[in-house]
Amino acid sequence: MSTERPGAGQDRARQDRAVRTRQAILEAAAVVFEERGYEAAKLSDIVSLARVTKGALYFHFDSKDELAQAVMEAQVSIEPVYVPQEFRVQEFVDVGMILSHRLRHDVLLRGSTRLTLENGGRGLDRAAPYRGWIDLHTRLLTEAKARGELPAHVDPAQPARTVVGSFAGLNVMAHTLGLDLDREVSALYSSVMAGLVLPAVAVRLDTAPGRGARALHGPDGERACGCGDRLVRPAGE
Amino acid sequence: MSTERPGAGQDRARQDRAVRTRQAILEAAAVVFEERGYEAAKLSDIVSLARVTKGALYFHFDSKDELAQAVMEAQVSIEPVYVPQEFRVQEFVDVGMILSHRLRHDVLLRGSTRLTLENGGRGLDRAAPYRGWIDLHTRLLTEAKARGELPAHVDPAQPARTVVGSFAGLNVMAHTLGLDLDREVSALYSSVMAGLVLPAVAVRLDTAPGRGARALHGPDGERACGCGDRLVRPAGE
Repeated sequence: MSTERPGAGQDRARQDRAVRTRQAILEAAAVVFEERGYEAAKLSDIVSLARVTKGALYFHFDSKDELAQAVMEAQVSIEPVYVPQEFRVQEFVDVGMILSHRLRHDVLLRGSTRLTLENGGRGLDRAAPYRGWIDLHTRLLTEAKARGELPAHVDPAQPARTVVGSFAGLNVMAHTLGLDLDREVSALYSSVMAGLVLPAVAVRLDTAPGRGARALHGPDGERACGCGDRLVRPAGE
Repeated sequence: MSTERPGAGQDRARQDRAVRTRQAILEAAAVVFEERGYEAAKLSDIVSLARVTKGALYFHFDSKDELAQAVMEAQVSIEPVYVPQEFRVQEFVDVGMILSHRLRHDVLLRGSTRLTLENGGRGLDRAAPYRGWIDLHTRLLTEAKARGELPAHVDPAQPARTVVGSFAGLNVMAHTLGLDLDREVSALYSSVMAGLVLPAVAVRLDTAPGRGARALHGPDGERACGCGDRLVRPAGE
């Protein structure tokens, strides 16, 4: 027997619809920001792609700045950022490999990383996503060091900054030259980890292309993923 | 005794002035592009910063696109990109370390790398700078391999792409977080080279911060450089 008050089902349906509409606006915004950049992006293109009214957009977001900020925040709120592993350094690698896997399928993430790298829209806090990623990587390497996976002289913050900054650039370069980001990120980690971890750990690390899909979906990786482009459509379509 | 025809001195003075005006426009454009991004950059801000007329700007550049393209090309035409060294892998490192040194002093380069990473201005050829840098790095590593500085299994194109893409991202991150780019680039090379070159070569490489200034100006590096911000002012000021 339900203990809900009468009408609660309707409220929930309305709430679900609002959540989906907000998500559709965010994803349409991500597509338009990725395609045109912040300055050239038009709210009219976003509402038309999201198939919502301008009123609906303004119900959820006060301004283009606020919308862009929400798109950028998407990249630090994805879950899971990694899956627990035997070695913390594998988790460190997995954060980037999973992100590269997700960027292939998730338009919201692509728009988000794009905005972080751009210049226009000077009210936006572009430092926050970098700081979030650097903190996460530093924490993982600090734990790895405490567990004896890294030599004692390593300062965890430096490789954390190196991979976060490098990842951002490889993402733009891959996009610009039509390269496979996953292969480029794999090469970065293979290279950085070889100089970082103790040899006994190095030989057991997986930094090969497809690692992100394997970390999330097991040894079959991309084949077991079945992840098409994630694109939520607004309610009622 | 001069063999010049009469009036040649005046022609040359006019030519010098035109070259300096073009350079002043390029550098003002670089400042404005770096500050505001391509889309938001206004030609009126550029002419006012360069202290030239709009007519002078249109004498040298047909459009904002053409001006941005010329700024972007500045980064592949800097000389020297490296100074001959005993090891080709040191030259490979020096390309990035010299570029990071120059970015500290050269506003034209800063605007150029900024535009390459941005999205707006869809007529611009953003792939060309990446390709130019990747080709140069690949050539240096191919020579390094032929001279026995690298293990036989290394594919020179992959580390070339890794450092070029990573450098671009570290540049944006350093700018966004107010970090010292030179230190970040040094960490990238230290990390990548450790996994790349043969140990006997590795111990003789200089990848420490300040390497760019040392490669250009000798062991005293930055102190011997005396490079302030390079900013050409138009003729007659």
